[in-house]
Amino acid sequence: MAREFEPDIPDIVIRRLPLYVRTLRALADSDVANVSSDDLADEIGVTAAQIRRDLSYFGKFGKQGKGYDTRSLEQAITQILQLDREWPVALAGFGSLGHAIAHYRGFGPSSFRIAAIFDRNPDKVGEPLGEIAILSDQCMTSEIRRLGIEIGIIAVPAAEAQEVANAMIDGGVQSILNYAPIVLKTPPNVRVREIDPIWALQTMTYYLGVGS
Amino acid sequence: MAREFEPDIPDIVIRRLPLYVRTLRALADSDVANVSSDDLADEIGVTAAQIRRDLSYFGKFGKQGKGYDTRSLEQAITQILQLDREWPVALAGFGSLGHAIAHYRGFGPSSFRIAAIFDRNPDKVGEPLGEIAILSDQCMTSEIRRLGIEIGIIAVPAAEAQEVANAMIDGGVQSILNYAPIVLKTPPNVRVREIDPIWALQTMTYYLGVGS
Repeated sequence: MAREFEPDIPDIVIRRLPLYVRTLRALADSDVANVSSDDLADEIGVTAAQIRRDLSYFGKFGKQGKGYDTRSLEQAITQILQLDREWPVALAGFGSLGHAIAHYRGFGPSSFRIAAIFDRNPDKVGEPLGEIAILSDQCMTSEIRRLGIEIGIIAVPAAEAQEVANAMIDGGVQSILNYAPIVLKTPPNVRVREIDPIWALQTMTYYLGVGS
Repeated sequence: MAREFEPDIPDIVIRRLPLYVRTLRALADSDVANVSSDDLADEIGVTAAQIRRDLSYFGKFGKQGKGYDTRSLEQAITQILQLDREWPVALAGFGSLGHAIAHYRGFGPSSFRIAAIFDRNPDKVGEPLGEIAILSDQCMTSEIRRLGIEIGIIAVPAAEAQEVANAMIDGGVQSILNYAPIVLKTPPNVRVREIDPIWALQTMTYYLGVGS
């Protein structure tokens, strides 16, 4: 299904949209049926002009002087982000981090489901986790291809991460969530996000000790 | 040391600055001594106008027509973010996630050092990790206060996270990195960032299947 949005939507806009969805969902769940762009901007922490500019990439939303219908805007953005379906995800690495990710409770209500787990340690291979079993990293490419998985999570040590990324991409993965502290080299059609605690910490130190 | 910036710098600006530091450091390390705002914008993935606006909150940087000196701009932003010192960090939860965080190699070259680890499981208490030992969560508040720790990482199950946050805040923590999939309630002087793999995944699904 080809979608017909402008091809050059800045990635920063796409990155903001999940926050829109989350905020709109919280408003709708609190029975706020309608929200002005000013109020929505306040909730999200951007300017109203930014919201209008972001949404303008995808069509016309809201009515002049009437604001947005929270539920329908949430559903529209959910569709834009293709979050109105379930995505199978491959997890590579079943050490302590992989364990934590596989058991992360946030997956339950999300659009994502861990559908395959790989580890290179033979002792872990075969270990069952719910309905799936840990597989050898030797079968990563073929299993990802067989299951039609397009999303991978890398939770292996830094030294193995590039090799794992290559194997995932060979199998058809186009989106990678990388927990390993290295910058992966990937072809232009593959998108990588990094889970980086250092980065997150660096966004908070600014505020420390202010006023002291 | 009181700093004298505008008090109302948008948080989104602060959140972007670590990316500036990282990008400038990479440029400087590649012997790029000078960079135009257009080129820097390209590297960072924002507009040149955005960069000029972001930096204008903190003073005058760069010279008209000459661009920025990469190393000195990197150092200036590092100072603004208070990353030119070491910050001790308290980690709560030494399950599989806590293990992974404690062993995260990214801490090595960073401004952050895990200085105390807490767990409520008596079997884990006393277990050594490098130069520190796992402590009972009973001593969290007092130990955080004793060590002057202002930054906490929460890696406990969702059901325990709020209680842990309260104990950290009682000890003096003002910045929390939260891995538990719940929204913490905190006083206005405490800042929380969430490490949320679902969020990161949600920013990539937009791109999947485009062109297919």
